[in-house]
Amino acid sequence: MKSTGRNDSVVLLSGGLDSSTVLGIALSQGHSPLALSFSYGQRHSRELESAASIAKHYGVKQVTVSVDLGKVGGSSLTDGDVPVEHRKIEDITDRIPSSYVPARNSVFLSIAFGLAESSGSSTVFIGANSLDYSGYPDCRQEYFNAMEESLNLGTHRNGGAKIRIMAPLIKLTKDEIIRKGLSIGVPYKLTWSCYEGGSKACGKCDSCLLRLRGFMLADSRDPLEYSSLPDFYRSYLTRGK
Amino acid sequence: MKSTGRNDSVVLLSGGLDSSTVLGIALSQGHSPLALSFSYGQRHSRELESAASIAKHYGVKQVTVSVDLGKVGGSSLTDGDVPVEHRKIEDITDRIPSSYVPARNSVFLSIAFGLAESSGSSTVFIGANSLDYSGYPDCRQEYFNAMEESLNLGTHRNGGAKIRIMAPLIKLTKDEIIRKGLSIGVPYKLTWSCYEGGSKACGKCDSCLLRLRGFMLADSRDPLEYSSLPDFYRSYLTRGK
Repeated sequence: MKSTGRNDSVVLLSGGLDSSTVLGIALSQGHSPLALSFSYGQRHSRELESAASIAKHYGVKQVTVSVDLGKVGGSSLTDGDVPVEHRKIEDITDRIPSSYVPARNSVFLSIAFGLAESSGSSTVFIGANSLDYSGYPDCRQEYFNAMEESLNLGTHRNGGAKIRIMAPLIKLTKDEIIRKGLSIGVPYKLTWSCYEGGSKACGKCDSCLLRLRGFMLADSRDPLEYSSLPDFYRSYLTRGK
Repeated sequence: MKSTGRNDSVVLLSGGLDSSTVLGIALSQGHSPLALSFSYGQRHSRELESAASIAKHYGVKQVTVSVDLGKVGGSSLTDGDVPVEHRKIEDITDRIPSSYVPARNSVFLSIAFGLAESSGSSTVFIGANSLDYSGYPDCRQEYFNAMEESLNLGTHRNGGAKIRIMAPLIKLTKDEIIRKGLSIGVPYKLTWSCYEGGSKACGKCDSCLLRLRGFMLADSRDPLEYSSLPDFYRSYLTRGK
């Protein structure tokens, strides 16, 4: 399932669990994807290192584009002044989290369309899901449909077929995503979800909590190392013994 | 008309004639704009220097965001392998010119929306016009309407007013833009339109030809220095004597 020769799609690859699963899905469907990653002023480069490892694992070509979203401000992922929140899993509701980066997906999709246009690709895959990230307005199917429409109006494939935006995880919960990924051999050990950098995931930020709950509900053990584990996951591991 | 305190709008400012006119128009309408410029892998930095001069002239705050569109490829403005075309003014028709950058306006508008969202601005101004640039799919009103709709779906001003995209030059010819700009004192001497860098504009690329024809049709002399002038403009200057 190695990507060879001409590409037919662009997969947005952050190095996280979701986008890595989408890359696995695209390959399992017979696509020849190009992986597109962004250096956008994240707090740490760990995620990008994971993206490179995943692309290498699958033998797909990776393009990394720098875009200075730090200048856009307002988010804990790029703005040093906004601290990463530590909440309990039950407090992660659908309000807008502080990790929201204004217009991030719009920027990423726009660049992905540019790359799709210049590479002759007809599909852009994105790992958004509307359930765990219901607080992000740019993770809804309605938004993707509208972006697909408008971005096609802005490209000059007028004579050709439209470029499609595919969000295969959009209606899946984290545990459903993990079950799917495990069934097609996605190397979750290489992925990175934690909002913090470091050699081990923190086990405390929203992203770590959602990931660990996902593995628990998928009845599987997360292969990643954590510097601390939340009680619910610790209980799960104990129950499993 | 200096911008003071809180901003209510974002003006995309390339440093060219069109966007500089739009900044002048926004200020003349009483807006308090923030100027947004992009370092996107242009062949030269002359345009960005002009953008800074224009922002300084008007006393507006400028944010410059780096985005590596060179990686997206396929354009003479960012890709060293594609030469700048030199055509006669009558050959500049509505086919897609080689200076087209895939998805450029989509990327710029997405980032502008992010900045509008984080700065509480309600309007994004863009200097696109559909007549001189009819070959660019991302300069049409239909495209801007669709982008406005989809980008608003992707921001979290759900409770608040929509962010509007305003393209005040969209139906104007270059000479109409210049007449408008001259009437409100836009400092065209500080602007830069040439696709090439250098201390003087080339007077040969599409952008120089359209600009010079615009000044001629507006019956005005371009205050910018050129290293060579096309015959039609030379004749105009001679006739004016």
